[in-house]
Amino acid sequence: MERILQKPRVSKATTKRLSLYLRCLKGLEKNGITRIKSSELSKMTQVGSATIRRDFSHFGELGRSGYGYDVSDLIKVFSDVLETKEEKRIALIGCGNLGQALLNNNFRRNENLNIVCAFDNDPEKIGKEICGYHVYSIEDMTAILAKEKITVVISTVPSQNAQTAIDQVVANGITAILNFAPDPLKVPDNVHVHYIDLTSELQTLIYFDGQ
Amino acid sequence: MERILQKPRVSKATTKRLSLYLRCLKGLEKNGITRIKSSELSKMTQVGSATIRRDFSHFGELGRSGYGYDVSDLIKVFSDVLETKEEKRIALIGCGNLGQALLNNNFRRNENLNIVCAFDNDPEKIGKEICGYHVYSIEDMTAILAKEKITVVISTVPSQNAQTAIDQVVANGITAILNFAPDPLKVPDNVHVHYIDLTSELQTLIYFDGQ
Repeated sequence: MERILQKPRVSKATTKRLSLYLRCLKGLEKNGITRIKSSELSKMTQVGSATIRRDFSHFGELGRSGYGYDVSDLIKVFSDVLETKEEKRIALIGCGNLGQALLNNNFRRNENLNIVCAFDNDPEKIGKEICGYHVYSIEDMTAILAKEKITVVISTVPSQNAQTAIDQVVANGITAILNFAPDPLKVPDNVHVHYIDLTSELQTLIYFDGQ
Repeated sequence: MERILQKPRVSKATTKRLSLYLRCLKGLEKNGITRIKSSELSKMTQVGSATIRRDFSHFGELGRSGYGYDVSDLIKVFSDVLETKEEKRIALIGCGNLGQALLNNNFRRNENLNIVCAFDNDPEKIGKEICGYHVYSIEDMTAILAKEKITVVISTVPSQNAQTAIDQVVANGITAILNFAPDPLKVPDNVHVHYIDLTSELQTLIYFDGQ
């Protein structure tokens, strides 16, 4: 592919759809399918064809009229956009079961995403190793975040304590936060919080299954 | 609110945005804000105003020109759409750290979403109690799913074993599956699989933080 790719600025909604397209396209590739029309991808993803074509148009001329899109071509373009090229050093806050699941998995599909340190406020956990990671006290956050050159934080802190923990994260200059507690956090405009709300996800599924 | 609400058929994309709107609106309500314009909600959610107005239009006349939308009104309408009114009995497959986090939390914000049984293929776990739940062998799935009247399955089975486990789930007539392994599964057309891909979610966050 000779196209020179500029990383276009696309909306959050488009970016989330790119992840969805990428997953479907990888599934197609695994099944030996080499090209696809937007109408077919629309059926798989339940995203309208017009939206798909508009999303794709951000990345230049990807398809050919009457031919559709080349699956491996799309995978390459969307992977380039979504996958981080430089190492991201990540701190985990909250080492309960969910935190431990994240430590164990540690995004091993992407070598540039690395949880490198963990925090908790439980005296039983502080100073111990959990899943191979030293657990620091939340009180030591300022020193450790700087020392470990952290730029991304994942929080599994429950809603009732999440704002306090996130205030401290933000005070340390972190602007990218993945948050597993569904209650909205107050953060300055320059801070990006991405919420994963498992109850909403399950409800979305059930809504569709009921139709 | 005197409006008679029909549950409209909306797209998956709209439904996912409803969850996002709902979370933002609940945050506004918590902060004492009683009305909002689509342009303001657009800024909060990063969804275009036109999309917001189109999404809202599925639910009848929600807003008034020049006034905007009533926050508590929107919360009621969207909650009615998204929140399950009847009990959903859920089986969990895979009792590792992530599975245990789900068992411990068990969607306690919504009394109608209940994980009622758990499966694993690890002889160390089968027959024991984990987080208060009896763990069954995956081999006993057919009998237990029927006995427990399960209609929804959550799978935390890793990608390499996910297809085999899901084939068995589908063979038992389950049509709603929440899947934490990102690789696409092959399922019949009538089966809904909703994927939660934590790596994609993190990459979406990082993409936005980098802009």
